[in-house]
Amino acid sequence: MSQPVVVDTVVALRAQIRDWRLHGLSVAMVPTMGALHDGHISLVRAALSTADRCIVSIFVNPAQFAPTEDLDKYPRQMARDLDRLAEAGAHLAFTPTVSEMYPTGFATKISVGGPSAGLESDFRPTFFQGVATVVAKLFLQALPDRAIFGEKDYQQLCVVRKLCRDLDLPVDIVGAPTVRDGHGLAMSSRNAYLGAAELGVARQLNVILRQAAAALAAGTDESSVTAKAAAALLEAGFDRVDYVAARESLTLAPWRRASDGRLLAAAWLGRTRLIDNVEVSSFIP
Amino acid sequence: MSQPVVVDTVVALRAQIRDWRLHGLSVAMVPTMGALHDGHISLVRAALSTADRCIVSIFVNPAQFAPTEDLDKYPRQMARDLDRLAEAGAHLAFTPTVSEMYPTGFATKISVGGPSAGLESDFRPTFFQGVATVVAKLFLQALPDRAIFGEKDYQQLCVVRKLCRDLDLPVDIVGAPTVRDGHGLAMSSRNAYLGAAELGVARQLNVILRQAAAALAAGTDESSVTAKAAAALLEAGFDRVDYVAARESLTLAPWRRASDGRLLAAAWLGRTRLIDNVEVSSFIP
Repeated sequence: MSQPVVVDTVVALRAQIRDWRLHGLSVAMVPTMGALHDGHISLVRAALSTADRCIVSIFVNPAQFAPTEDLDKYPRQMARDLDRLAEAGAHLAFTPTVSEMYPTGFATKISVGGPSAGLESDFRPTFFQGVATVVAKLFLQALPDRAIFGEKDYQQLCVVRKLCRDLDLPVDIVGAPTVRDGHGLAMSSRNAYLGAAELGVARQLNVILRQAAAALAAGTDESSVTAKAAAALLEAGFDRVDYVAARESLTLAPWRRASDGRLLAAAWLGRTRLIDNVEVSSFIP
Repeated sequence: MSQPVVVDTVVALRAQIRDWRLHGLSVAMVPTMGALHDGHISLVRAALSTADRCIVSIFVNPAQFAPTEDLDKYPRQMARDLDRLAEAGAHLAFTPTVSEMYPTGFATKISVGGPSAGLESDFRPTFFQGVATVVAKLFLQALPDRAIFGEKDYQQLCVVRKLCRDLDLPVDIVGAPTVRDGHGLAMSSRNAYLGAAELGVARQLNVILRQAAAALAAGTDESSVTAKAAAALLEAGFDRVDYVAARESLTLAPWRRASDGRLLAAAWLGRTRLIDNVEVSSFIP
């Protein structure tokens, strides 16, 4: 187990990558906001399975938080994160400061249409602009061969794919399955906000989504399934449901039964907002 | 004199560049909208003086024209352009179709703040978003070492520099001096719209700007200089003046006497809109 190289400037990042490139090594990147859990580690493993070198960026990106959101309390635990990356075999941790990423006078924004419409954007209207801009920067700083994103943030995965396709960003985007605890709860850095009782409620999110997806696949009407799932979430103890919605799995356009679908949800437990999503099998009645 | 390679797909462009890179060759790019004149050819020469290979893109970018503007009548003369590129020694002409650049479903936009504010943006509000998005795409398609832009489109040059700095696009932006006819008229593809009488008026644009810049450098008050220059343009025969304005030469922030400045103008002759700009020497009274 060797410690990853830790760099906090673009210049140092590029110098290390240039050296790898001169040796003919391929590079995969895992962009994160730190507070690493088993889900992130699975992305590192996926990166290592397809590339010679794995870069993990750790950057809590202010541009993707609204002023009312949890930027300040978002968990930060760099020493522990670096230990986990060492265990997992990541080669480099890129840990830029906010001023390295957004120097004074920074003034450029990337907005991605298509899959960014609705769902998260209805509740976090500047979120994907913040994500797209920082992801484009990270990709242009590192120019990795590919990057691994978790399916847990499914709409984000679709937006990043679209960003790369539309701008001809030469990075392959790989989606990796959500890692869950033994009760089906998707790993999330925000799970750290949950007390013991809330954890029990949180675990119902995936249970209810899987039941709803099965009902959709069995031919039950979409609007009654999503309404019932939303009601079940409140019944289970969630305080508010932002959305439960079925979408086409590639474009996130409204779901048609003949196409592969994804059922996505966001709901609040106290001041913690959780998201999750599951596959919906295509079904032709 | 050998003909440039002509490619119209990103795949073919990248294949040629990959081959050059394997041979250790450096690459410079000159993005154009075609209708090539001596100004463009000077950019090709600048490219060839600093890189082993020169790519010229020819793409009339719909995204930077407003619906009321001259997209349809913008001059297109591919055969003549390719002859001129052969004479100048360019190695590759990239001539994508609109659907190659903007496939169905394309939905991503880049907006650059800072130097894009005011001037052209006051009259062409979506222009720089169109420019920034297509330039980012061209750079990501080709990943050239550097790109050459004319100072004739001075605000565009500043916006492209800012785009690359903000997004960490690894392309050096080189500005090249405006090429003028014997009477000082800046070369422009839109000069082709001008009749003989209009040409005589058009030539006054640079004369009046140079006089105004000299007055600024001599200490005359900025607002009186720009108002006088605008009046002189109308007097000379221009039909409308969009702006005459002094700005800091790097940031395009309002000009302060202690800093290097640029005097920029846009004015209409019939249905033709001309722009030009000149240096303002720094002057501490």
